[in-house]
Amino acid sequence: MPVNAQYRLAARPSGLPKDEDWQYTEDAVPAPGDGEFLVEVKYLSLDPAMRTWMNPGRSYVPPVGIGEVMRAAGIAEVVESNHPGFKAGQSVFGTFGVQNFAVSDGKDVQVVDTSLAPAPTFLGTLGISGITAYFGLFDVGRPEPGQTVVVSAAAGSVGIVTGQLAKIHGCRVVGIAGGPEKCRTLVEEYGFDAAVDHRAGNLRADLKEHAPDGIDVFFDNVGGDVLEAALARLARGARIVLSGAVSQYNSTEGPRGPANYMQLLVRRASMTGFVFSDYADRYPEAIEALAGWVREGRLKAREDVVTGGIAKFPETLLRLFRGENTGKLVLAL
Amino acid sequence: MPVNAQYRLAARPSGLPKDEDWQYTEDAVPAPGDGEFLVEVKYLSLDPAMRTWMNPGRSYVPPVGIGEVMRAAGIAEVVESNHPGFKAGQSVFGTFGVQNFAVSDGKDVQVVDTSLAPAPTFLGTLGISGITAYFGLFDVGRPEPGQTVVVSAAAGSVGIVTGQLAKIHGCRVVGIAGGPEKCRTLVEEYGFDAAVDHRAGNLRADLKEHAPDGIDVFFDNVGGDVLEAALARLARGARIVLSGAVSQYNSTEGPRGPANYMQLLVRRASMTGFVFSDYADRYPEAIEALAGWVREGRLKAREDVVTGGIAKFPETLLRLFRGENTGKLVLAL
Repeated sequence: MPVNAQYRLAARPSGLPKDEDWQYTEDAVPAPGDGEFLVEVKYLSLDPAMRTWMNPGRSYVPPVGIGEVMRAAGIAEVVESNHPGFKAGQSVFGTFGVQNFAVSDGKDVQVVDTSLAPAPTFLGTLGISGITAYFGLFDVGRPEPGQTVVVSAAAGSVGIVTGQLAKIHGCRVVGIAGGPEKCRTLVEEYGFDAAVDHRAGNLRADLKEHAPDGIDVFFDNVGGDVLEAALARLARGARIVLSGAVSQYNSTEGPRGPANYMQLLVRRASMTGFVFSDYADRYPEAIEALAGWVREGRLKAREDVVTGGIAKFPETLLRLFRGENTGKLVLAL
Repeated sequence: MPVNAQYRLAARPSGLPKDEDWQYTEDAVPAPGDGEFLVEVKYLSLDPAMRTWMNPGRSYVPPVGIGEVMRAAGIAEVVESNHPGFKAGQSVFGTFGVQNFAVSDGKDVQVVDTSLAPAPTFLGTLGISGITAYFGLFDVGRPEPGQTVVVSAAAGSVGIVTGQLAKIHGCRVVGIAGGPEKCRTLVEEYGFDAAVDHRAGNLRADLKEHAPDGIDVFFDNVGGDVLEAALARLARGARIVLSGAVSQYNSTEGPRGPANYMQLLVRRASMTGFVFSDYADRYPEAIEALAGWVREGRLKAREDVVTGGIAKFPETLLRLFRGENTGKLVLAL
C-alpha cells in the first residue's frame, strides 16, 4: 500500500532552514474527484526562491502556511484521471509540492514530451530556468550583439542558460560563480568568454579586467556584494535584470540594499525586476526557441540530479545555498 | 576697482561641509581673450548635487579639484565680449562657479530672456530644475493620466515642479516633504492632492493612506528611508525615477542602499537613473512647454532667493541639507 510522504513547513526559519523547520508526514494517497487527476511526482525542482516562500508576508506569491505541504514545482506522471485533458501515463509539469502524490484540477499543469528530452530537463533548460533566462535576457535585458553581458550565479540553473543564450545572441559573456572548478566549467564546457570567482576576493578588479568597456547587461541572481561590484562597472545605459538575490535570502539581519545604487544615475542605467510567470502566454515561443538551440547543439542542458527520494529534500535544498550545484538542482523521488 | 571674490574647495568634507572646507579668495577681475567674454554673476544656483561634486572620484561629472573655484550654475550679465555670439548687457545661463566674475568661451552658455520671467526663474522652473522635472517625469517616469505619482523632496526645486507637471498631466500627486508647513503649502498653493511629512514618523502608513492603489511613478530626490517607504508601496509595473539622493550625500558612514530593493521584482518595477544634461538637444521643447504652463497660470514658479552676496555662500548651501528652502534656492550676489 503506497503512502504519500510529504514535507510540511513546521516553522518560519531564521537564516538557513534547519531540520526542525520541517515536518515529515505520511498521508494516504488521495483520490481524484470529478475533473481531477492523481499524479505521482518523479522529480522535484529545487529553487532558491523557495526560501522566500517560507518567510511571512506576500512576495510575488503568497507564503507557504505553517503546516502546509512545502510548495515545489516538479515533473510527475499521471496515475489516474477523471479530467478530460489528462490521461494516465502522461508526464506533466506543475507545482505539486514536496510530496509523492498530488491531486490536481489541471490548472497551470502542462503535459511534457519526454521523448524530446529527459524529464529533469523540463525543470531546467526547457522549464522554469530556461524560460526565466529567455525572457529576462531578451525582454528585460535586451542586449545587442557585441555588448557585454555579465551573469551572476552563472553556474546555477538560470545562469548557465542565460550565459549560453547571450553567446548565441553574439554577446561577450562573463559569468560570476563560486570556486575555480565552476569557473573552468563555464568557460571550457559552456562557452563563456570569461568566468570570475567571487570567492577569490578580487571581484571588482576581475570584472574590470573581463568587462573592460563596462557591463551592458547584468543578469543578477545573487544581490549583495556581487550586485555592488557590477553596479560599479556599468556601461552607460546599462540594464540590470533582477532575477533573484540568493545571497540575501538566508540573511538573519535582513536583506541589504546595494549601497552604490546611485551608479544607476551616474551611468543612466536601470534595474528592473521580473517574474517568469508573467510571460505564461509566451511560454511556447520560449520553449520552441530553447528546444531548437538544444537540438542544434548550441545550448547544452545541464541538470544536477540528486537521487535518494523525498527524505533527502531538506538536505538537498541546502545545497543550493552552499552553491554546490552546477545547473538545475533536481531531486529524483 | 572691483575684485573677483571666490569660494574655492579647500578640503573634501566628511559629512556636511564646514567652514574650513572652503577657501575665500579675492582675485583680479579676469580679462576675456579672443572669442571669449566676461560675465558678472548675478544669481548663483544652489543644488544638492554640489555636495557630490566635492567628493573624490568621478560621478556623472568630474569632482571639483582642491583649490579650484567651486562649481555652480548661475545667471550672469555679459560685461565685455570678444565673442560673436554674446554681447554686453545680455543675461546668460552657465556654469560660472562660485565667484563674482568669470570668463567664458560660450560653451554650454545660453542667453536667457529676462523679459519673460525674473532671472532666478531661469535657474529654477525654467532652468535646470524645470528641465529635470520635465524629462525625468515624462521620459523616464512615463505616468499615464489617472496614475499615482509620488515625489520626494516635493517642496524642493525639482519636486515642486515635478508635482505640478504630474497634476497638469492628470495624475494623482502625493508629495513627501519635511514639516507640516511645507506640506500645507504643497496642497494649498501648488495643487498636490496630498502631502506627507516624512518627519512625522508614519511615512509608510501615510503613503498607504494617500496612495491606496500603490505608487505608479516615484520620482526620488532623497533616497534612504524615503526610498524604502516608496518601494514598499509600489504598484505593479511601477517606475522609480532616480533624480537624487540628498539624504545620503552627507552621510559619514557612506551611502546606504534600499534594503527592500527586491520589491522591484515583487512588483515587476524598474528604477532608472537619468541626468538632465543628456537631454540638451531637447531643452527648447522643455522650456517652451514649461513657459507655456507658467503663462497659463497652471505652473507656479517658486524660487527662494537669499540676498547678502557671495559671503553667504557656505551658510546658504547648508540650508539645502536642512531642508529649509521651498522651491529653488538661489543666492543673489
